Amino acid sequence: MFELSGSYTDLYELTMAEAWFRAGRQDEKAVFDYFFRRLPFSGGYALLAGLEDLLAQLEQLRFSPRDLEYLAAQGLSSAFLAWLENFRFRGSVYAPREGDVVFPLRPVLQVEASLIEAQLIETLLLNVLNFQTLIATKASRMRTAAGSRPLLDFGLRRAQGLGGYWASRAAYIGGCNASSNVLAGRDYGIPVSGTMAHSFVQSHVDELSAFRAYAAARPEGCVLLVDTYDTLQSGLPNAITVAAELAAHGKALQAIRLDSGDFVRLSRAARAMLDAAGFTGVKIAASNQLDEYSISELLARGAAVDVFGVGTSLVTGHSDGSLDGVYKLCWLNGQPSIKLSENAAKTSLPHRKQVYRLADDSGRWLGLDLVTLRDEALPDAAFIAEPDGLPSAVSLSTWSTSESEALLWPIMIEGKRTLAARNVSEIADYARERLALLPAEYKKLQGAAQYRVALSPGLQAEQARLVAAAERS
Amino acid sequence: MFELSGSYTDLYELTMAEAWFRAGRQDEKAVFDYFFRRLPFSGGYALLAGLEDLLAQLEQLRFSPRDLEYLAAQGLSSAFLAWLENFRFRGSVYAPREGDVVFPLRPVLQVEASLIEAQLIETLLLNVLNFQTLIATKASRMRTAAGSRPLLDFGLRRAQGLGGYWASRAAYIGGCNASSNVLAGRDYGIPVSGTMAHSFVQSHVDELSAFRAYAAARPEGCVLLVDTYDTLQSGLPNAITVAAELAAHGKALQAIRLDSGDFVRLSRAARAMLDAAGFTGVKIAASNQLDEYSISELLARGAAVDVFGVGTSLVTGHSDGSLDGVYKLCWLNGQPSIKLSENAAKTSLPHRKQVYRLADDSGRWLGLDLVTLRDEALPDAAFIAEPDGLPSAVSLSTWSTSESEALLWPIMIEGKRTLAARNVSEIADYARERLALLPAEYKKLQGAAQYRVALSPGLQAEQARLVAAAERS
Repeated sequence: MFELSGSYTDLYELTMAEAWFRAGRQDEKAVFDYFFRRLPFSGGYALLAGLEDLLAQLEQLRFSPRDLEYLAAQGLSSAFLAWLENFRFRGSVYAPREGDVVFPLRPVLQVEASLIEAQLIETLLLNVLNFQTLIATKASRMRTAAGSRPLLDFGLRRAQGLGGYWASRAAYIGGCNASSNVLAGRDYGIPVSGTMAHSFVQSHVDELSAFRAYAAARPEGCVLLVDTYDTLQSGLPNAITVAAELAAHGKALQAIRLDSGDFVRLSRAARAMLDAAGFTGVKIAASNQLDEYSISELLARGAAVDVFGVGTSLVTGHSDGSLDGVYKLCWLNGQPSIKLSENAAKTSLPHRKQVYRLADDSGRWLGLDLVTLRDEALPDAAFIAEPDGLPSAVSLSTWSTSESEALLWPIMIEGKRTLAARNVSEIADYARERLALLPAEYKKLQGAAQYRVALSPGLQAEQARLVAAAERS
Repeated sequence: MFELSGSYTDLYELTMAEAWFRAGRQDEKAVFDYFFRRLPFSGGYALLAGLEDLLAQLEQLRFSPRDLEYLAAQGLSSAFLAWLENFRFRGSVYAPREGDVVFPLRPVLQVEASLIEAQLIETLLLNVLNFQTLIATKASRMRTAAGSRPLLDFGLRRAQGLGGYWASRAAYIGGCNASSNVLAGRDYGIPVSGTMAHSFVQSHVDELSAFRAYAAARPEGCVLLVDTYDTLQSGLPNAITVAAELAAHGKALQAIRLDSGDFVRLSRAARAMLDAAGFTGVKIAASNQLDEYSISELLARGAAVDVFGVGTSLVTGHSDGSLDGVYKLCWLNGQPSIKLSENAAKTSLPHRKQVYRLADDSGRWLGLDLVTLRDEALPDAAFIAEPDGLPSAVSLSTWSTSESEALLWPIMIEGKRTLAARNVSEIADYARERLALLPAEYKKLQGAAQYRVALSPGLQAEQARLVAAAERS
């Protein structure tokens, strides 16, 4: 893990904190909501990712001597720097488990801490959760497209610099089977995988010599890249020769990889050639600017591809590139707080809150998350925010309390985790398990149904009261 | 700086290296080209960025004990692990200076090293240069749109995780004046800047109290966020009150910040209110999902915005998200190497090469980079690759040798830099200086002219010879 220090933040977090400190407000208690407004990729859901990384960073977060020296040079006061030197995050975090399915316009997570502490972690929290949630969601969509076929992350070279580290983690959580990223494999336990590059083929007098050299070095798990010269005229015949040589030694060629050309035509021809030579077990991998749409299309057009290698589009979350997650103050010193907007739908939700996921008797989700005041009893009716920002009433009387699941639970209390850390494999399993409860219409790659958010009567009334009070003042 | 270790790579770099090692080829010499095929943002140029970071990483690159332990568990042989333990990058790098203007389809940089060393650094090189070049280019486009107005990077919270670190560096090189990113400020010496968040306003009994508290803590460089309740009815009157209070103490309010609404209408109204109150020196900053297009449009529509804060679109390089840079073997053991393609335009350029930038008497660039064999005399004629991959001849006789500038010079020899490291400020200055030589038609945000690449007769002939030889074999 890259251990981040207190300077992994925006300057204004520090200047605001200093202003509060100067006013003697360092012991005031605040609650912030983390939420996003728009689902990425015009999809129907997002997968929460990055939470374990966030908690691990919060547990070790300090202002280092180098940070303090730098901040002193930026003009922060020595009294505040002394406070920063002793800074530890001692707040609480309420959230679902990492890998859960989350939706826009209701809290994904709440932070409850001193005002200054809660503010100081804003940038870190947004940076970790926005990005990993984006990439886990993208990977999940590619998983939907690829069905049960192995899906490999090859993106590090096209990743956004060091962003590739968390991208590979989130990609695995979202549904990739392995990554080419050795550092992510080392630190997170993600299975690593790789084939060969054109340069390896070019480095030999001919393609067959290259294939033989690679098979000699990696008789197990050997994957041959067949498009350096001519995929069907040269690559396939040479790969079949090497497959036969491996077979003669009791080994099996694992796969060939196509990296250019028309994958439908090439994969079908390659499959026929391999099968005709008796190598029905040799897989065909394809990689080249693939995304969920091109994977779906290739399979719909009958491509004989068994394994997909994905890169740029996955690790950069193309074409969105970011999740629009924000962090808003909703509670301060026992009082609700609100941020108005000219657009009523963007007015924030005040108060400490709880989010319930409603399900039917069989546990299948009903397309509606309910947001309540944290301690409010589950109501019989709620209000759905319409696109114009005005609420419409919906009855909840057909759903019993037992069918609703509270999503925001304390996962960190006073700076300490309440649950053991989970590894990426456990998180990926949980994501799969949760996605299985989401009806298919929300998982469509195009034209997905939109999950709805309802506000409880208590929350609705409090929001209206605070808007009116703010407008009067 | 995050010091990266040898595991910051794709697995296949290691498995290929092991195969070469097994065959006793660790002393063979190779040359790889780094180049990209397509300009980002449908623009007319790119700014090379990340080079100093790359060199610094290459100088310190090692396989750590933890890397070696992990790779042993992945099945790499103990003989090869012993070689990796002693690995240092002892190769040479030929490149322009960081911040130079670069174009597609000709070498941006060449690496000359042992085959294994050159291959092992591929992923790191691509990861650093692809991303920073993308973001520096994006920032440069925003700089074009903003004219001489300050342009501030506020993107860390929406950056691709740790990618935000290099994003802020590259953004500064491309033309941003400052960043909110404290870590990038600390490590790279980028000026840091910041305002306040809505939460700060909400944390006070009213907006005026919040503004007063912030002004008290930051009487110099105070910027007030005016849209928490109502920009013109509340934010501006309160900001003007505080501006007057600061003025009474001999201080000046630096700026107000608009973060929502119609910036043309709001900025003009705010300007009028500030001016009417005598605060003609108070700047107006705007931030909210801005990019080069919206900045241009705001200014064209008469927005009275003096400072632009940019975030998501800048630090993620929206809507491209990646530069398609690749790294191709072009020379091995004294012999040229080539990678064919069904698309002739994608056939690689063999040989060690030089790139010349042609200029007129006044030093203004002529829209054509010339690629030659490294030691070839400057020719009188060259060949331009047309979109169909076929060459057309162009005369160079009107240009003298003295007006052409060689771009690929040794910046690292046998693992040591040949030039002192330059800081981001020097690099940003150099980028500005170089961009000033690029004719305006290549800098247009839309419909930019396309710089051309010509191949020397020697290179053209060698490429044709090697294609023919490969097709015969």
